[in-house]
Amino acid sequence: MGMADIAEVLWNDFLKHNPANPAWPDRDRFVLSNGHGSMLIYSLLHLSGYDLPIEELKNFRQLHSRTPGHPEYGYTPGIETTTGPLGQGLANAVGMAIAEKTLAAQFNRPGHTVVDHHTYVFLGDGCLMEGVSHESCSLAGTLGLGKLIAFYDDNGISIDGEVEGWFTDDTPGRFRAYGWQVLEAVDGHEPAAVRAAIEEARGDTTRPTLICCRTVIGQGAPNKAGSESCHGAPLGADEVAATREALGWTHPAFEVPADVYDGWDARAAGAEREAAWDSTMAAYAQAHPGLAAELSRRLACELPESFGERADAYIAECQAAGASVATRKASQQSLNAYGALLPEFLGGSADLAGSNLTLWDGSKPVTAEDAAGNYLYYGVREFAMTAIANGIALHGGFIPYTATFLIFMEYARNAVRMAALMGQPQILVYTHDSIGLGEDGPTHQPVEQLTALRATPGLNTWRPCDTVETAVAWRAALERRDGPSALVFSRQGLPHQARDERQVAAIARGGYVLRDAGSEGAPEAVIIATGSEVALAMAAAERLEEQGRTVRVVSLPCAEVFEQQDAAYREAVLPSDLLARVAVEAGHRDWWYKYVGLDGRIVAMDSFGESAPAAALFEEFGFTVDNVVAAVDEVLQAL
Amino acid sequence: MGMADIAEVLWNDFLKHNPANPAWPDRDRFVLSNGHGSMLIYSLLHLSGYDLPIEELKNFRQLHSRTPGHPEYGYTPGIETTTGPLGQGLANAVGMAIAEKTLAAQFNRPGHTVVDHHTYVFLGDGCLMEGVSHESCSLAGTLGLGKLIAFYDDNGISIDGEVEGWFTDDTPGRFRAYGWQVLEAVDGHEPAAVRAAIEEARGDTTRPTLICCRTVIGQGAPNKAGSESCHGAPLGADEVAATREALGWTHPAFEVPADVYDGWDARAAGAEREAAWDSTMAAYAQAHPGLAAELSRRLACELPESFGERADAYIAECQAAGASVATRKASQQSLNAYGALLPEFLGGSADLAGSNLTLWDGSKPVTAEDAAGNYLYYGVREFAMTAIANGIALHGGFIPYTATFLIFMEYARNAVRMAALMGQPQILVYTHDSIGLGEDGPTHQPVEQLTALRATPGLNTWRPCDTVETAVAWRAALERRDGPSALVFSRQGLPHQARDERQVAAIARGGYVLRDAGSEGAPEAVIIATGSEVALAMAAAERLEEQGRTVRVVSLPCAEVFEQQDAAYREAVLPSDLLARVAVEAGHRDWWYKYVGLDGRIVAMDSFGESAPAAALFEEFGFTVDNVVAAVDEVLQAL
Repeated sequence: MGMADIAEVLWNDFLKHNPANPAWPDRDRFVLSNGHGSMLIYSLLHLSGYDLPIEELKNFRQLHSRTPGHPEYGYTPGIETTTGPLGQGLANAVGMAIAEKTLAAQFNRPGHTVVDHHTYVFLGDGCLMEGVSHESCSLAGTLGLGKLIAFYDDNGISIDGEVEGWFTDDTPGRFRAYGWQVLEAVDGHEPAAVRAAIEEARGDTTRPTLICCRTVIGQGAPNKAGSESCHGAPLGADEVAATREALGWTHPAFEVPADVYDGWDARAAGAEREAAWDSTMAAYAQAHPGLAAELSRRLACELPESFGERADAYIAECQAAGASVATRKASQQSLNAYGALLPEFLGGSADLAGSNLTLWDGSKPVTAEDAAGNYLYYGVREFAMTAIANGIALHGGFIPYTATFLIFMEYARNAVRMAALMGQPQILVYTHDSIGLGEDGPTHQPVEQLTALRATPGLNTWRPCDTVETAVAWRAALERRDGPSALVFSRQGLPHQARDERQVAAIARGGYVLRDAGSEGAPEAVIIATGSEVALAMAAAERLEEQGRTVRVVSLPCAEVFEQQDAAYREAVLPSDLLARVAVEAGHRDWWYKYVGLDGRIVAMDSFGESAPAAALFEEFGFTVDNVVAAVDEVLQAL
Repeated sequence: MGMADIAEVLWNDFLKHNPANPAWPDRDRFVLSNGHGSMLIYSLLHLSGYDLPIEELKNFRQLHSRTPGHPEYGYTPGIETTTGPLGQGLANAVGMAIAEKTLAAQFNRPGHTVVDHHTYVFLGDGCLMEGVSHESCSLAGTLGLGKLIAFYDDNGISIDGEVEGWFTDDTPGRFRAYGWQVLEAVDGHEPAAVRAAIEEARGDTTRPTLICCRTVIGQGAPNKAGSESCHGAPLGADEVAATREALGWTHPAFEVPADVYDGWDARAAGAEREAAWDSTMAAYAQAHPGLAAELSRRLACELPESFGERADAYIAECQAAGASVATRKASQQSLNAYGALLPEFLGGSADLAGSNLTLWDGSKPVTAEDAAGNYLYYGVREFAMTAIANGIALHGGFIPYTATFLIFMEYARNAVRMAALMGQPQILVYTHDSIGLGEDGPTHQPVEQLTALRATPGLNTWRPCDTVETAVAWRAALERRDGPSALVFSRQGLPHQARDERQVAAIARGGYVLRDAGSEGAPEAVIIATGSEVALAMAAAERLEEQGRTVRVVSLPCAEVFEQQDAAYREAVLPSDLLARVAVEAGHRDWWYKYVGLDGRIVAMDSFGESAPAAALFEEFGFTVDNVVAAVDEVLQAL
């Protein structure tokens, strides 16, 4: 209720949208970063003519309604992103504004402005207290996102009460320090003031704008306005009645008079706006047919036609070349192989470009002055990076990839989850994936992070063992349109593995037999490994074979994809009667019980790492041929 | 090398410390937040006389040396906190300064200043880009931490190169907006300027100070100074030689002339300082014997003598009372029961006090003006909160507890890991622990978060099922001195469980038989559950018993503690030949294979949640008696 007056002005006087087509590419984006006020946006969508009938509003927060407690992307037409986790909607909005600016720079031509829209975001004290607001707004200032306009709901209240006890920032001063235009002390309940502020914001095209709106939480509720008792909680029947009386509103609940609907209905204007854009696009297609086709392809999220063929060829080349390099290096080679085909790449790293190896031959930075690039220097801002890339993916027109060390995924963790929850195809590059990174020590060495990624519903986690698996992992991530993929790479060099064509093809199934016991029948035991431990598993199997054992090695670069294979394939790789199973991975032990059960053995990490050269650490923590061989012997004896 | 000149002034002219006793409680704290410059602090410790011989410096980054790649708490005398993950050292320092201010307010008396020290922190561009710097420095300003002095190493370089492409903040303006004193453009290579700045910083006792030091990265290296090539990377032999020549340094590597050692040696001065403090303490003990004894107890991290007895009594009371309430409510009751004995409590919540129920009858806010309280209103700052509490724990004198919704543990995730890595006894309260929170929907409903906590080495995760298990969990967390505990509580009401005395005592073992199959011999099957699903497991067991089955129910509130029990106890609870196992938990499936293996069944979550009333969600996601009974039947038939 506090921001309703601002929303009225923005939606009726400024917002460029078409309720009949929430997917119109050149619409303005509207993000409610303080997502607990979801009923505001549902009301706006309903009133302006989106496919959100009054029955859905009555079903607020009920199972399978289109009006969940927080705005959820994909549930409700017109919801641009899922919000609720504070600060991230703002970061998503920064991503949308980057996407707009970059797409415009790449595609607009003199006389043909085919990409031209604003991103508006509502936010509250909570968003501003969160660290991700600092990271994302600092970068927004550096990149000069002139078409990003944020409305700060300055109501002085958060859940714990009046914020002055814990939030005393001079917020205008803070945003000026980021290089934003700041419009202070705008009366959020005075439409003319709000209108003037929006006009001023739109007038500055080189800086993002923060409009600080003085508002009263629960405005209109005679007894609860201005109090934390109406923060994300219902007013209660008595206060609702009192509010209705105070407003002179006599209509029954959920009945909206026709003249109110008429005043809000944005369908006719929206159709006109989209039709005008269609004309612009038609003229563009005539003048720049190649660009127009390319823009359409990218907005449709389709890979170039030749991509599959190129990928097949590149993967075969990798197998033939047999190079032994770190998988982070193999990742960069994949970027070079695929990148030339993919102008939709919008990559970046959180200040680790040289370590993550995320720059490729065609990388060009996106800057405030020249946004036509394809690479973002995100700075040391893992959380904002990941949330911004979600915004880029939601905007459309790009395939965003982001990168940091695997351990610092944790700084960005909830944005990784949000990518999965929203089904956005962000590609998350995580290098330095185990104790194998060596001397930087336990603060930098992942142990439990693979487990966290694998437990995230909807996320595919790839941990390839060599250049070939890396090329397949990148391809799978690029071809996936319905969710994010984490690509987990080593710092240290890894040996190439021999494969026949059938094995090369099987990598894409997530798990496959890399080495079998030979022709002597069923294997006695299986060693399952990923990434840097595949070579160790292979060496142990060789030793065991010398000792007369028949041992299979399964490489499992992506368990989620393996689990999606048909039962017959999975059974062929991991027969259910093959109970002598040993898993080897320089990550946390517990997750592996899923594959070896109570009868198997797991060579893994139970503690944090140490600072030392990588070879000393693998020895120290038991990743040795001797240990893996002993584990196989043990499990065979116990069965 | 860039900050060496600043360090020289600070350590030789200001730092109050005693190299012979790195644990002296009233020492100044020194934190190197940009931990990749670890060799700086090792040099300082070595030169000033800490037990860190030159041999250890030669062993830099080698296994089991005292000089790991990043400063690691517990490895090296004089290292106050583990740093490396950027921004967190700064947040730890804020926590140390809060601890100092609060401890001083609680214990100092007119004429008796027993707590009086500064916290100094070095930080770089990376720390300032990280969101956690915003959260922690904003709160530091609000709390008026006048004895916190931060040195910003303004060298213009981060790993990716010159920061101007991605970091254009007006940092002084930003910190002024937080209410800090900011000293701009101090020449970090000019000792007199640094000295004057430190004096000015110390002169302002009501605001934290940021000293912005212009420095040159790799100062002294003739060819690499000022370039990212010396950011966390060695100079190389040629450049080392050139640097030595430029400095006129002719001594062999690792040989320090006696006069240099003499100039740095802080042992005599340190002993004097500590002796002076001992006298102050002796006078204090005479004037205020009770306070002095209490301060000593708290600094020694000892619980009050009567604590164990009170806890026993309270746990028995809970069992006798048999109340059925939400475990978050039970947690608040535990706080009330234990809190009166524990003036060392320093609690807080990230703007969710009323939801986490972390305020208890004796809670009193810590404010800038009155720091003698025991409760911090952290605001919506989960990451800073958790890292600040690590700093409070490292400082000593307090038992910090922090709180947020379980899902927002993710915002703080790496600080949780740092608590575990450093073995700090922070108590992490996480409420709203599953889909049981209902209408707020999937952004707020944890699924994979329990898995992430349980995979963290050194962290104990408790998920109690009723008031009694909650009281035991709190007690265990309070008695644990060598690491953090996560206490995971429900939003919704949970029924009390009947127990005999032996069962009540067994809760503390992490897992125990809550219901057995009766006297008819060994159970056919076991259902293992935690928290809100224990009641469901009990109802299913009852139904199965009606059907003639003999089923055991194991409550597993803390798997980590259960795993620490002797083999005989674990075998008694979960016999290895009892393979008919079903696990029930409204969290992610995969972790549970550890207890049920490949033959068992798991009733758990495989997807994100939904927005709906809790009862509808438990039904929707299969947490029903029918489903659990069917799972037991299935597993019995399959075996």
